[in-house]
Amino acid sequence: MKDDANLVETAPRSVWHGWGDPQLKKELSPLVWRGLKLAKGIEPAEQDTPPVALDDVELPASTLDDDGLAALRTLVGDAYVSVERRERIEHAGGKSYPDLYRLRTGDGSHAPDAVAFPADGSEVVEVLRLAAQREIAVVPFGGGTSVVGGVDPVRGRFASVISLDLRRLDAVVSIDETSRTATLQPGLRGAQLEAVLRPRGLTLGHFPQSYEQATLGGYLVTRSSGQASSGYGRFEQNVVAVTLATPEGELTLGGRTPSSATAAGPKLIDVLIGSEGTLGVITEMTLQLHEGPTEFAYETWAFDSFTDGFDAFRALAQDLGHGVMPDVSRLSDGEESRTILAQSARGLAAMATFAARGAREPSLGVLRWEDTDRTTLRRRRRQAHRVLRTAGARRAPASIAEHWISHRFRGPYQRDHLMDRGIFVETLETATTWANLPTLYSAVRDAISAEVGPHAVVQCHVSHLYDGGASLYYTFFCREESDPLAQWRRVKTAASDVIAAHGGTITHHHAVGTDHRAWAADEMGELGARILRAVKNELDPAGILNPGKLVPPVDDAPDACEAGAS
Amino acid sequence: MKDDANLVETAPRSVWHGWGDPQLKKELSPLVWRGLKLAKGIEPAEQDTPPVALDDVELPASTLDDDGLAALRTLVGDAYVSVERRERIEHAGGKSYPDLYRLRTGDGSHAPDAVAFPADGSEVVEVLRLAAQREIAVVPFGGGTSVVGGVDPVRGRFASVISLDLRRLDAVVSIDETSRTATLQPGLRGAQLEAVLRPRGLTLGHFPQSYEQATLGGYLVTRSSGQASSGYGRFEQNVVAVTLATPEGELTLGGRTPSSATAAGPKLIDVLIGSEGTLGVITEMTLQLHEGPTEFAYETWAFDSFTDGFDAFRALAQDLGHGVMPDVSRLSDGEESRTILAQSARGLAAMATFAARGAREPSLGVLRWEDTDRTTLRRRRRQAHRVLRTAGARRAPASIAEHWISHRFRGPYQRDHLMDRGIFVETLETATTWANLPTLYSAVRDAISAEVGPHAVVQCHVSHLYDGGASLYYTFFCREESDPLAQWRRVKTAASDVIAAHGGTITHHHAVGTDHRAWAADEMGELGARILRAVKNELDPAGILNPGKLVPPVDDAPDACEAGAS
Repeated sequence: MKDDANLVETAPRSVWHGWGDPQLKKELSPLVWRGLKLAKGIEPAEQDTPPVALDDVELPASTLDDDGLAALRTLVGDAYVSVERRERIEHAGGKSYPDLYRLRTGDGSHAPDAVAFPADGSEVVEVLRLAAQREIAVVPFGGGTSVVGGVDPVRGRFASVISLDLRRLDAVVSIDETSRTATLQPGLRGAQLEAVLRPRGLTLGHFPQSYEQATLGGYLVTRSSGQASSGYGRFEQNVVAVTLATPEGELTLGGRTPSSATAAGPKLIDVLIGSEGTLGVITEMTLQLHEGPTEFAYETWAFDSFTDGFDAFRALAQDLGHGVMPDVSRLSDGEESRTILAQSARGLAAMATFAARGAREPSLGVLRWEDTDRTTLRRRRRQAHRVLRTAGARRAPASIAEHWISHRFRGPYQRDHLMDRGIFVETLETATTWANLPTLYSAVRDAISAEVGPHAVVQCHVSHLYDGGASLYYTFFCREESDPLAQWRRVKTAASDVIAAHGGTITHHHAVGTDHRAWAADEMGELGARILRAVKNELDPAGILNPGKLVPPVDDAPDACEAGAS
Repeated sequence: MKDDANLVETAPRSVWHGWGDPQLKKELSPLVWRGLKLAKGIEPAEQDTPPVALDDVELPASTLDDDGLAALRTLVGDAYVSVERRERIEHAGGKSYPDLYRLRTGDGSHAPDAVAFPADGSEVVEVLRLAAQREIAVVPFGGGTSVVGGVDPVRGRFASVISLDLRRLDAVVSIDETSRTATLQPGLRGAQLEAVLRPRGLTLGHFPQSYEQATLGGYLVTRSSGQASSGYGRFEQNVVAVTLATPEGELTLGGRTPSSATAAGPKLIDVLIGSEGTLGVITEMTLQLHEGPTEFAYETWAFDSFTDGFDAFRALAQDLGHGVMPDVSRLSDGEESRTILAQSARGLAAMATFAARGAREPSLGVLRWEDTDRTTLRRRRRQAHRVLRTAGARRAPASIAEHWISHRFRGPYQRDHLMDRGIFVETLETATTWANLPTLYSAVRDAISAEVGPHAVVQCHVSHLYDGGASLYYTFFCREESDPLAQWRRVKTAASDVIAAHGGTITHHHAVGTDHRAWAADEMGELGARILRAVKNELDPAGILNPGKLVPPVDDAPDACEAGAS
């Protein structure tokens, strides 16, 4: 368990202009900056551009009228409705590059008109009913970690918008140790839950990069996937029951059986999972838990190329399968591997060895196992080693894997530093079938590279393995242009178009929000969009819930039902 | 592979009045009948009541008008629209007890007015459009094996109803051996597919008791679960993409990623899975395949009681988990175990041994492993043995497991024999959490027993294990009363009410159809029912698709949208 000690410590909530505690902002060393200049011609801006002071953010006056504010205060209590500057700015968006860029540069125009902190599910229903009556848009807010605009306070056709912060719904309602399930409120953060579960020998096993800040409700409505998804499954696979508050009342689905073990009609719970606050607000959930691991191991392996690694990782997923394959499997492409190796003396030495062997684009694989039994863990590793050696993989310094494990939640801190220094930095991700993986990988990398130009780092890793395919996760950075938001839009659009054209999904785990809505609409097709709009119209006829996110807008003339609702 | 030879042989289509080939009808031996009389007071009726002759079935005239028939024939071809007696009767229902009882006794009143056999997806769309225009109900028909009224030609508010038989859509469209997926048409039967996959070293791994007759489309729309679900997953877990034909056009969801590996909004494909022909007709699907097993093993174990077995099976699922636990795990309660043991001399000897040890309700467990590697299979068995011995289980004659494996698709043949002899015989199933399993088991057993009286066999097994819970499957029989359909309704209602009252799901894998609709409605709740109706209204505004099944009817005043559609 000591290997996982950091998983039970709840971090302070994020600063409004960046990630987590600004004291922990992670700087690149002068050596790394020198390397970036030499290898890529990337230099920081001459002048740092730190975030503006809170008081310097331009904040429009709240448009919520006095009656509305008073009614809200009556429902949830005076102390739990805020129109203060800090609260409004802290809820002005998620943690996407555009969200942070706007706030850092003093643009508070996206801030909600008020923030409400309901105490429980029935207060949530009351707030939604009030908002529907008074035509106020409502944006549910958990950890606020969306990187796709999912919690941006978009007004839509409404004059006012409030952010509905669920932090007070943070109870562990009950734990069923026999069935290994827990009933939980959505505002809980992962570490709060693990701190309760680990002493009982249990875990949820969900550790996305946003772990320090994200909430269970956020995981659920975005169909989150944690780093150990090969071991514990995607979040949705562990959802047993969901209670959703809507303007039309409360809805509970599931709970009579483990996960999907029923044939009582379509799995409607999957309409709520991934609904991103557009259909209602999650007020309670029951999740499947797992035995907490006591044994841990990690290894680094090197492949002669990224595609050699694809074949090996495919064999891990298809031939070993769930329960035997590593719980975490990450495979970095040549560029990302070089970045990793360049960070340490041992890495540089390893790079020389690879080059001497003729592997000019070595691809690093980081594996991690978790188990409850040492013998079983050893056997699982041996089985994986056979697969890896068959694919021509060679052991690389374990310190690389160790470094990844201990820094796995640090990425967002580094972004704050890069933005200080005038660097444009973004990540995006997709997934596809094994057969399509090499083609999609190159196409997306090339599309990003074409947009960011030659003085840029564009790197990729595979980090979620399935029987039928895998995810691709790109990280790229270069100097900010004069209009970084236009730059962001251009790169994002180019990459997304190529993902769609080459048969990838627009998002493996970042969700849809505002940024992926157009491509998600293509993915669900016209009839799929009609299904989703029909469901929304039924649960949220006034359309107040999270406008502008996920649900494709109606392009052509609305039909009778939609006209009735608008 | 020889152990699975029977999985690649396609059986002839079922006779209209029973299961499969009537020559294979399985009779109980005089010894077994004697045992039933002694132990339970169950005797066959004095006179056998075999099915009436085909020509003696009372069949109403087809209500389909000449124009409608001609239009249908124009769309799919003269040879592929039938109003013949045999076709109409073969499509008059599924294989539930009421379905068979009615046909055996000459009641053909449920027969459809015509049967259409479209050639492909576009013909299906055309037929649905025609039916919507002309107000003809359409009942999609695959293998016709529903035991819950799922393919009964209910007319609803329409004058005519046609059965849409999908047997001509039986192509293996393509196989992607890298991603291990196959794109398939819905009319394929399992054995047809396995015959193509096994020589390539692949399998779908889906083997429900209906295997000889059921189709892939049927598996998909009923959220089917095969006997080896612990090894290969429930059917829905292997669905990668679905194309649905609706009166509003075609809809394809999924396909860009393995199974659920996307966060691009709610998993709308799960609205189509389990939709039982009420939202559209599946015309194509892509499924995840698995490596075909080459090594097999089976074992029988005995527990001192059913609940001792629960604990052991829970440990198999929770502590060993997917990939290690047996691929098939069946645990019979005391009554079912006695039935099994009484069938052989070795069983009777074993029973004596159990009694001598003081186990008066011994509970038999049948386990089966499938693997691609002999060493791995041996290790998996050893791991399971540790779990089983910890729970106090003892080995029992392997011949019991062997008998189950070789007879696992024979159950429906035995029912035909029992019905010939005036016996009322039914099965029903549910699932719940591990914590609730003992309570639910007893409650349902007691409810059935109270209805069927003392001269009856009521037995149960657990056959699908999950992290969080398991299924319960009841088989019961006794003498037919004077009105067997009323008897069926009474027992079914009592059992279903108790399942609902004690927190079980109304069905683990039989689906909803007509028979479970009221309880499924309770399970999804009022808002859940509104979601499902909203989706149906969008895809099938005329309401022609499979009336009377699954979708809860509107009790109260319809809202504007529903009124508009009717």
